[in-house]
Amino acid sequence: MDLAYDPRKRFGTRLAALRRAKGISQERLALESGLARSYLSGIERGIRNIALVNICVLAATLELRPADLLDFDAD
Amino acid sequence: MDLAYDPRKRFGTRLAALRRAKGISQERLALESGLARSYLSGIERGIRNIALVNICVLAATLELRPADLLDFDAD
Repeated sequence: MDLAYDPRKRFGTRLAALRRAKGISQERLALESGLARSYLSGIERGIRNIALVNICVLAATLELRPADLLDFDAD
Repeated sequence: MDLAYDPRKRFGTRLAALRRAKGISQERLALESGLARSYLSGIERGIRNIALVNICVLAATLELRPADLLDFDAD
């Protein structure tokens, strides 16, 4: 099935919005989650196809539910 | 950050439950989504770390929102 949208772009936009809403810098999110900052930057720019476990790690770091990060209709 | 749970297990359980609730076989979901059945089986058994784009493909195939598949608190 082909999607009508690019999930990587939607996810990146959503993650960046949620991170900023918490007042957390990209550097701090990288440090606290254990993900490389360059990788996190690529995710937020919508060029990385992040996998489930890292989605859940980012959600836990941001003290959000994993589903919140995929709540694309909300942005 | 280490998680207190295995997202692969949670996701697999959730996906299988949603698929069955729709009355769709694993084989049909594989065919309609374009994912290999062996891969889909591994996802539902919680041994695959599925990536974002395929999460969204499965959601679209099941006519659900991507966030529904990560709604782990609900199962």
